[in-house]
Amino acid sequence: MHNPRIISEFETAITKFIPGQSVDCVIISYENAMLKVLLLQWKNTEIWALPGGFIYRDEDMNKSAIRVLKERTGLDFPFLSQFYTFGDSQRRNPDHTAELLKAMQMKSPVVTQWFSQRFITTGYLALVNLNDCGTPEPDILSSRCEWVPVRSLPELAFDHSKIIEKALEYLRIRINYLPPGRTLLPEVFTMKELQKLYESILWRELDRGNFQRKMLRSGILVRLHKKPNAGAHKAPYLYRFDKVKYNKLTRKGFGFNPLEDNGE
Amino acid sequence: MHNPRIISEFETAITKFIPGQSVDCVIISYENAMLKVLLLQWKNTEIWALPGGFIYRDEDMNKSAIRVLKERTGLDFPFLSQFYTFGDSQRRNPDHTAELLKAMQMKSPVVTQWFSQRFITTGYLALVNLNDCGTPEPDILSSRCEWVPVRSLPELAFDHSKIIEKALEYLRIRINYLPPGRTLLPEVFTMKELQKLYESILWRELDRGNFQRKMLRSGILVRLHKKPNAGAHKAPYLYRFDKVKYNKLTRKGFGFNPLEDNGE
Repeated sequence: MHNPRIISEFETAITKFIPGQSVDCVIISYENAMLKVLLLQWKNTEIWALPGGFIYRDEDMNKSAIRVLKERTGLDFPFLSQFYTFGDSQRRNPDHTAELLKAMQMKSPVVTQWFSQRFITTGYLALVNLNDCGTPEPDILSSRCEWVPVRSLPELAFDHSKIIEKALEYLRIRINYLPPGRTLLPEVFTMKELQKLYESILWRELDRGNFQRKMLRSGILVRLHKKPNAGAHKAPYLYRFDKVKYNKLTRKGFGFNPLEDNGE
Repeated sequence: MHNPRIISEFETAITKFIPGQSVDCVIISYENAMLKVLLLQWKNTEIWALPGGFIYRDEDMNKSAIRVLKERTGLDFPFLSQFYTFGDSQRRNPDHTAELLKAMQMKSPVVTQWFSQRFITTGYLALVNLNDCGTPEPDILSSRCEWVPVRSLPELAFDHSKIIEKALEYLRIRINYLPPGRTLLPEVFTMKELQKLYESILWRELDRGNFQRKMLRSGILVRLHKKPNAGAHKAPYLYRFDKVKYNKLTRKGFGFNPLEDNGE
């Protein structure tokens, strides 16, 4: 980026943003029984980061997250859930800032000052199905844009591993009270596949019998035919979610609920 | 505040804060079967507001909320839960800003510019027992500091009614999955009093029989003796929370939970 026109454009762009405030997107998918998170690799470095960016002076913050994700990865989602705001004063490692500036080859004092300031960042979460979301593409600042398993993360910028951990914690808390993300599974699935999804999110093994019994009792699953192309005896049943019951349960939650007056 | 020394101190204080970023505290108590929120009334106005303030340049945001609450109301809490960040670009009504500046009698351009900028604010929530928390006192900017029933709020500054509504929504969602706030009730209470608390939070009536059955089945209540000084026949039982079971349930949640392998 020695090109003076690009540097000048960058300097102008920066003046349109709110200083000190950013958004970061934690986009989670599920593949080969692994949760994956969408990461960008900074150009000319080994450092990976969440797709993040800044908020225009006249832009609502929740809308900025959707725009930033689109600009940085090409992925277009209409809704992202805000899950936490990270405001520790030392959350950005200055060595990472220096490496970023060096990699960007931007010697402009305006740009340096911008990236060196303290940022408070708000985290946004989406669970997406790889079959629906299209192929992510890196932006001009990045060399790669990839789905990376959350249990084997590379070196991440700043406090981004903490941001991902907080997003996963949010997801774990939710899965205890709400049905599993319909978006993460294909249309039909086996009970074992559903259990694997739970185990990936909860990051520990579950008892097969109890899991199956509780899931069936929740009433959100519809049992279909047996899975084709499996051995005749051991062929497992396929299931899909009952959308009406699923949506109802998403509103009211699993289990104990004093809201519901009609007995169980 | 025509006093030049105070104005000068205020101008200096402002330079120590992060621009554009604030915190607001929603402190909820429970009295006479009503949820109440702690509000400050701006001096020389009819406008009430949440206790809020700014973040020092070297201060962690989560810590600033605790400090701001202390400075503005005298109340000292070691822990506040961050629940949402409000980032709409038009969230601050400019008429309110003008009225605030007029009421403060601050004609300093520095102060005017500070309060006229866009702020993104992070909301913090605490549930407190009135018997434990001390008496709140208004700060220098406020004429009164009071507990106000959430169902009969006066005119509020900016989007503060929306912030309170979001905090109550967070509380309603939590109460469906977690035990009720132990901090909101006295040490011992009747089943009717517990139900009233639920009804206040959920803002609707619940069936008495179902409520009692489910609460007892949850195992978090210990039944004590009958309430003294009530008619002999109709005297209700008193209850307290079983602290061990309460804490366990707070961690794992009510009802359906695939985390728990040991049957029910």
